[in-house]
Amino acid sequence: MPYVTVKMLEGRTEEQKKALVEKVTDAVSETTGAPKENITIFIEEMSKNHYARAGVRFSDK
Amino acid sequence: MPYVTVKMLEGRTEEQKKALVEKVTDAVSETTGAPKENITIFIEEMSKNHYARAGVRFSDK
Amino acid sequence: MPYVTVKMLEGRTEEQKKALVEKVTDAVSETTGAPKENITIFIEEMSKNHYARAGVRFSDK
Amino acid sequence: MPYVTVKMLEGRTEEQKKALVEKVTDAVSETTGAPKENITIFIEEMSKNHYARAGVRFSDK
Amino acid sequence: MPYVTVKMLEGRTEEQKKALVEKVTDAVSETTGAPKENITIFIEEMSKNHYARAGVRFSDK
Amino acid sequence: MPYVTVKMLEGRTEEQKKALVEKVTDAVSETTGAPKENITIFIEEMSKNHYARAGVRFSDK
Repeated sequence: MPYVTVKMLEGRTEEQKKALVEKVTDAVSETTGAPKENITIFIEEMSKNHYARAGVRFSDK
Repeated sequence: MPYVTVKMLEGRTEEQKKALVEKVTDAVSETTGAPKENITIFIEEMSKNHYARAGVRFSDK
Repeated sequence: MPYVTVKMLEGRTEEQKKALVEKVTDAVSETTGAPKENITIFIEEMSKNHYARAGVRFSDK
Repeated sequence: MPYVTVKMLEGRTEEQKKALVEKVTDAVSETTGAPKENITIFIEEMSKNHYARAGVRFSDK
Repeated sequence: MPYVTVKMLEGRTEEQKKALVEKVTDAVSETTGAPKENITIFIEEMSKNHYARAGVRFSDK
Repeated sequence: MPYVTVKMLEGRTEEQKKALVEKVTDAVSETTGAPKENITIFIEEMSKNHYARAGVRFSDK
């Protein structure tokens, strides 16, 4: 604990994802006091045809 | 806000998904008073081997 | 199936929530072809101190 | 109801998943009193590059 | 890993919840091969006015 | 986008939560390239009787 889920459009590189989990873990540890080894991160990717704002999918823009 | 997630079996066409996000956005806006541009929709698809009722997966029926 | 989750700030009236689930169910049924009796809706409410954009919670604005 | 989501690394066989939903449904029914036909299970798989502990992804270990 | 979320209507006793997490952990461990100490369970409760089937909330039935 | 959910035991102060969303937003923006104003964070709190490891709830330890 804590458990962090980051949901974003697909397309980030492996290097970006690697840096993302490292920096988010640091930020959560510093501000909540949880030790890093207790922090879990899940990345969830979505495609543009499954994500919509104002009734329009990003694949239809 | 609001954020709407629609989870369903894979297999709907792009036309169905396009209509889905359009109509659900209208329904949420009308009933909550939220402006359409603040409404986000995520579609999540599942496969039949990852979905079960009464202890039996839909792929095993 | 489908399963719909609507996540929004607390504060909507019971009448609004009642209308919300009715209209969203209609919208999902019409566009996906799923019979209404197979459509499940969950409402999740959040408070302003648990929701942030651009690094600022809505309770701090 | 209840709705159970099992999130795990990809790689389990179909036989394991079939047994998983069967046994978990039994366990939930026995302990909550819900009839089996009301219990729904979703399996969600993640890949090693989308799952991290202590700031390190399982694909980077 | 695995991470199991059980979502259900509020109203179960503490004894039922205690038995639930025990038996579900056993079931997941036996069928996936994961050691028990790696299995995490979250319980999420919902109220009847936030849960609907066929467009009608359980609080309105 | 991205959407970040931080799930943790209840008990953090408002100051900790305020700092959490600020620092996590910075970390996500730096590593993904997303502008801060596009980053949304949700905090979800759980109680000790709804969270278990190895078949035992944290409220039963």
